[in-house]
Amino acid sequence: MTTTQTTTAPTPLDRRELDLIDAYWRAANYVSVGQIYLLDNPLLREPLQAAHVKPRLLGHWGTTPGLNLIYAHLNRQIKARDLDAIYVAGPGHGGPALVANTYLEGTYSEFYPGIGRDEAGLRRLFRQFSFPGGIPSHVAPETPGSIHEGGELGYALSHAYGAAFDNPGLVVACVIGDGEAETGPLAASWHSDKFLDPARDGAVLPILQLNGFKIANPTVLARIPREELDALLTGYGYRPITVEVQDPEDHDAAHQAMAAALDDAFQDIAAIQRLARENTGVVERPRWPMIVFRSPKGWTGPKEVDGKRTEGSWRSHQVPLSGLHDNPAHLAQLEQWLASYRPNELFDEQGALIPELAALAPSGERRMGANPHANGGLLLRDLELPDFRDYAVDIKEHGVTSAEATRVLGGFLRDVMRANEQHANFRLVGPDETASNRLGAVLEVTGRTWLADAEPDDDADLAPDGRVMEILSEHTCQGWLEGYLLTGRHGFFSCYEAFIHIVDSMFNQHAKWLRTTERIPWRRPIASLNYLLTSHVWRQDHNGFSHQDPGFIDHVVNKKADVIRVYLPPDANTLLSVADHCLRSKHYVNVIVAGKQPALSWLSMEEAVAHCTRGIGIWEWASNDEGAEPDLVMACAGDVPTLETLAATAILRQEFPELKIRVVNVVDLMRLQPESEHPHGLNDREFDALFTADRPVIFAYHGYPWLIHRLTYRRTNHDNIHVRGYKEEGTTTTPFDMVMMNDLDRFHLVIDAIDRVPELHERGAHLRQRMLDARLAARSYTREHGDDMPEIRDWVWPLG
Amino acid sequence: MTTTQTTTAPTPLDRRELDLIDAYWRAANYVSVGQIYLLDNPLLREPLQAAHVKPRLLGHWGTTPGLNLIYAHLNRQIKARDLDAIYVAGPGHGGPALVANTYLEGTYSEFYPGIGRDEAGLRRLFRQFSFPGGIPSHVAPETPGSIHEGGELGYALSHAYGAAFDNPGLVVACVIGDGEAETGPLAASWHSDKFLDPARDGAVLPILQLNGFKIANPTVLARIPREELDALLTGYGYRPITVEVQDPEDHDAAHQAMAAALDDAFQDIAAIQRLARENTGVVERPRWPMIVFRSPKGWTGPKEVDGKRTEGSWRSHQVPLSGLHDNPAHLAQLEQWLASYRPNELFDEQGALIPELAALAPSGERRMGANPHANGGLLLRDLELPDFRDYAVDIKEHGVTSAEATRVLGGFLRDVMRANEQHANFRLVGPDETASNRLGAVLEVTGRTWLADAEPDDDADLAPDGRVMEILSEHTCQGWLEGYLLTGRHGFFSCYEAFIHIVDSMFNQHAKWLRTTERIPWRRPIASLNYLLTSHVWRQDHNGFSHQDPGFIDHVVNKKADVIRVYLPPDANTLLSVADHCLRSKHYVNVIVAGKQPALSWLSMEEAVAHCTRGIGIWEWASNDEGAEPDLVMACAGDVPTLETLAATAILRQEFPELKIRVVNVVDLMRLQPESEHPHGLNDREFDALFTADRPVIFAYHGYPWLIHRLTYRRTNHDNIHVRGYKEEGTTTTPFDMVMMNDLDRFHLVIDAIDRVPELHERGAHLRQRMLDARLAARSYTREHGDDMPEIRDWVWPLG
Repeated sequence: MTTTQTTTAPTPLDRRELDLIDAYWRAANYVSVGQIYLLDNPLLREPLQAAHVKPRLLGHWGTTPGLNLIYAHLNRQIKARDLDAIYVAGPGHGGPALVANTYLEGTYSEFYPGIGRDEAGLRRLFRQFSFPGGIPSHVAPETPGSIHEGGELGYALSHAYGAAFDNPGLVVACVIGDGEAETGPLAASWHSDKFLDPARDGAVLPILQLNGFKIANPTVLARIPREELDALLTGYGYRPITVEVQDPEDHDAAHQAMAAALDDAFQDIAAIQRLARENTGVVERPRWPMIVFRSPKGWTGPKEVDGKRTEGSWRSHQVPLSGLHDNPAHLAQLEQWLASYRPNELFDEQGALIPELAALAPSGERRMGANPHANGGLLLRDLELPDFRDYAVDIKEHGVTSAEATRVLGGFLRDVMRANEQHANFRLVGPDETASNRLGAVLEVTGRTWLADAEPDDDADLAPDGRVMEILSEHTCQGWLEGYLLTGRHGFFSCYEAFIHIVDSMFNQHAKWLRTTERIPWRRPIASLNYLLTSHVWRQDHNGFSHQDPGFIDHVVNKKADVIRVYLPPDANTLLSVADHCLRSKHYVNVIVAGKQPALSWLSMEEAVAHCTRGIGIWEWASNDEGAEPDLVMACAGDVPTLETLAATAILRQEFPELKIRVVNVVDLMRLQPESEHPHGLNDREFDALFTADRPVIFAYHGYPWLIHRLTYRRTNHDNIHVRGYKEEGTTTTPFDMVMMNDLDRFHLVIDAIDRVPELHERGAHLRQRMLDARLAARSYTREHGDDMPEIRDWVWPLG
Repeated sequence: MTTTQTTTAPTPLDRRELDLIDAYWRAANYVSVGQIYLLDNPLLREPLQAAHVKPRLLGHWGTTPGLNLIYAHLNRQIKARDLDAIYVAGPGHGGPALVANTYLEGTYSEFYPGIGRDEAGLRRLFRQFSFPGGIPSHVAPETPGSIHEGGELGYALSHAYGAAFDNPGLVVACVIGDGEAETGPLAASWHSDKFLDPARDGAVLPILQLNGFKIANPTVLARIPREELDALLTGYGYRPITVEVQDPEDHDAAHQAMAAALDDAFQDIAAIQRLARENTGVVERPRWPMIVFRSPKGWTGPKEVDGKRTEGSWRSHQVPLSGLHDNPAHLAQLEQWLASYRPNELFDEQGALIPELAALAPSGERRMGANPHANGGLLLRDLELPDFRDYAVDIKEHGVTSAEATRVLGGFLRDVMRANEQHANFRLVGPDETASNRLGAVLEVTGRTWLADAEPDDDADLAPDGRVMEILSEHTCQGWLEGYLLTGRHGFFSCYEAFIHIVDSMFNQHAKWLRTTERIPWRRPIASLNYLLTSHVWRQDHNGFSHQDPGFIDHVVNKKADVIRVYLPPDANTLLSVADHCLRSKHYVNVIVAGKQPALSWLSMEEAVAHCTRGIGIWEWASNDEGAEPDLVMACAGDVPTLETLAATAILRQEFPELKIRVVNVVDLMRLQPESEHPHGLNDREFDALFTADRPVIFAYHGYPWLIHRLTYRRTNHDNIHVRGYKEEGTTTTPFDMVMMNDLDRFHLVIDAIDRVPELHERGAHLRQRMLDARLAARSYTREHGDDMPEIRDWVWPLG
């Protein structure tokens, strides 16, 4: 079940190949160390002086030589087998390695012509690394060939699988650090092998890089017995092939072992794929190969620094030699270290990699730095979208008939799936909630991806080649989808609203990626990351307090305005319009919040399109201000707040027919911000035209109320905007009790209006009392019957 | 390595024991089904009518019978071995099970005397479940014996380990659902066995409850070959013991298998502990036993509903029969189901559990619902705290000498650790960053917990009984700490600021737990959850954009004000004072943000104590308004913003000596809120006394600037508060370049002041230009030299 490649193992490389691949590795290591340390003297053509060394040393050496060795050997495989391969660097803090390799293969200079393949280019390459005005120290969007930011750890393998789905010709080599392997998201993502179809998808080759240490500690996986590690990886469904560096000085042995292991792995991958693709009938989950690569941290770096072990120790995690400006011994040690790679044998007079070595890299788009899959926007093909208007809920009147918004959306998504089946570029992901979130219609045209065991009694929709992906790991869902989008495809993530916080940090990283790539000319825009948050805070009456949190919106709006969008469609038709818009958009994160429960339909499709196009607007059919200045603005954002606002408006209009009420509904939350803050922001004149300069505004909002203040605090009428929303009150109860607990209910909104409109203070006293009584009555009915009063449940516009 | 207990396996139970334990299980199942369905007729003493059934059916049946079976068998073990045990229900949506069992054992009625052990009590118990005004449908803080909210999935096992640390006599039985097992946090937390000392800590018995389905899908772990699952669990370091229900009708076999498996496990646990505790010399990581429990989902429930398989299917996840008010066949099926448990044999005339069955439960605090570890506040012992003033940085003048704030804190924490060693009730957790975050002094008195393999070259501070816990999984760190706190101990979590977002959702759940338990009279307050966020946004110049995110504060302040606190101490002495306060506090989440880099010390210890006590205040030594109304308020919160504010103030005072400037520093961010919003909030008079009613305020803030607006928008002078903070601009660069990129630098603050103070508009024009030039000069110096200008790096108050 496991193969250990040691010095007695196969020796696929002959002497010349060995010498060449070792020289290539030395070159990559040299260029890596140069980036970390050197301002000048890039080819070490004069004695190293302190002035050649950067004043601040920022970078990570420890993982770098291992990443370099793997890259060199993958190049060999690509050339030998004409592989279409990309490289995901889990230990992405090893930024120097990926920069070095893409420089050596030539892609770096193609993307950045200012950094040529000569001494001047090498000088610039070294200087810019981790230097103000230069490039980040980690593998970053700026790095050619990368789809994976070397920031937060844990997502390498789910990104790799995401890239491989629907790319049958692609191999994704995914290096996983042993530190990263301790994270939860990574630990879960090993099980992605139960979701990869060998016939229809590409392959992922995980390479677990065990170098023993994190920042200051040993790593768990490097410090369990080998049989235990093999059992773990076997348990995850893989066939581990171990490459172990037993003698750090014996590079030949290491190269032979790695070459043999990769030969074994790629032969196996080819055999698995051949079998799956020829035998189109039966699909069995294969046991995919993977590599366990045990090598010293900081390999080939200083053995000892100041008498302390450094190679093979956590001490080489970042910069092993740091006293270069004060300590001549360190400077001498650095010179010796750089010289140990023998740069004069590797680069020619002009400073270019010598031709024999340059020839080891693949050419053109086969170079991992130039592979178009790693610049997914290049391959992006717009979705074919059926006309969303065809799925409209037919409404005769405003607010009388009900629909389940997400179920209506499900019909549209089903046909999106169908229309793009031939292009194999659209997937739905979610933690086991597609049906529960009422998007089940999609399963009429595709299955749920499943390569684990099936049982006769299972629903027929489990299928190896399904495009609905469900695993109870929001992290894995998000990672898959990101990998899929980053390689030029489209997708949709549906999730319970409260639990999308599980991926807050992943969202951060993706939003930062989008933001950064916007400013990199050679990066092409990718499809937007679309979230549908449903089973939302107001309809978690059954699951209770732990399932109630509308704060993902707050989290999202902290990121740069040019990459984030938030939509709160109030009914089924507006949801259709918003979803269509999001699926067409590029390079955003779109957050859509919409309920799945039966809810009143407010707008005809024609009205919905007009309303969503504006993103915010007056609902004239619900208002009676008739173009004049109103006495009161009733504003709302979100489906449940819209219902309560309209019910409150109906009560107010019935009681005070002469009161001029304007109802404003917000679909696109970013319209509330000043135009200087967000491209969707209304200018002040437009905002004032809706919200007036001085009239009371009662604003019923889906989420935490302070967000509305944050978005509007610079507006003329801000002092008169009174917001109701979720104020962290909830339990297991009924839907109306939930809104009452948070003072967002129709009765309280009427009270708020009476309290805010001066002319109602006296006239409204009686109604105010009735509203208080109505709240009490609703509450006691609920406590007695365990349900909401029928007149509340069944209310329709204008009054039931 | 694995044992399958089937019908041919040992039969530890005799006929009478079998009958009794099966009856107990039937009673628990009956009481569970009753909770989900019944409003009345709790003992089925009249024919079941629709009126006896709740109008809205909210609950989860699928996992419940399995949870009940495990509980009954754990009771047997507790009695037989006098175990001190608690029960963590990972599938916490099976709330009915834990309520049923604590009711049957008598603890429920002790905590809730209104719900007696008779027919009336049973009626109330049934009615209140998932009913408005009643109890949540999930295992919740209201459930006796619970330390684990049945909300979000993934944290059961890390909570269980957290409870076991430093509790040598405790056994934590931890049921893990096969859905939950797919989550990242759970997948990572299996490795907690490398951090549990068999000599000093208690034991955790993981019970993987494989019932095959999530909401609508099969589960991964139930659908991999058995050898693969065994390999996985062996790889995680456990000895799996399998209990498999092969025939759902053969309850005897199931009871025998579970009894034998638990006998095996508890004997093994006792042997492991004996060995470790007798042989005090050598500590080897044991292979702890665990149970794999394969049983049908919704076991003993309806076999089929409407012709579709229900027992053993995902269809029994929630409420298997739902048409009770419209469909007489469903009602009849429910009656039959309830009757199948033969309640008349289980409960006496009054409705009490018959004595033979009641005798099966342990008594007193041995009952899992009454175990004081599960109401940790009962066991909480205040920390012994050395006088934090003894660790003060001695300052001769304000803002002249430097200190590394977290390193100073490290000295204090070391002595906190030492002072409480005898009580074994304090731990530090963090993802491999204790040393990197400069808290390393703690390692002088305790080790880093480590039971995986050690190597000769390792640092000597790895130790099985260390109390510094580092794993590269923020989820596991947080879960351990929560479990530790919930069982009545203290702790401290240090983390990179950006990556604390990884646990956003866990924080949510814990904050909700604290909020809810405040209102449960029998729950005692626990120690606060203390976060130290360091390596913060302004000093991630080396790791770059992906490591820059100060938004955890924004996330935290969305939760209820009575449980959250946020502190931004500006230097070492204020950090000491804040940390002391947090370690004494109870039942909060305290977020402390402080840097680890050398930074100026502003306050003497005496001043620091006074300042932290107020939480906000005027720094008179930096101001020249001398009690009069200032022309300008320079406000700041956070260490780097404080530095830039004081540097800007120095420039302004030098240039315009007659300009009256007031410097206000904020340590306790919640002071900014109105007193109606947060208990720490200043009243308006106090706020106006600091920030004036109408003078310009330039506010330099650590995080996203809009939070300051959100906290202050109701204040008199809000329109004049101009905030600078992190606006999502960053890369790998120098510290000063980072503040310049976000316009938070001293030069820009001076420009802001000139632009906001009317009298400076003209007079300041020249200085304004000089500031723009200074920015350009700083920028080009940095681009050229790769470092900040020495005069910026070395600036001290008032001017260098």
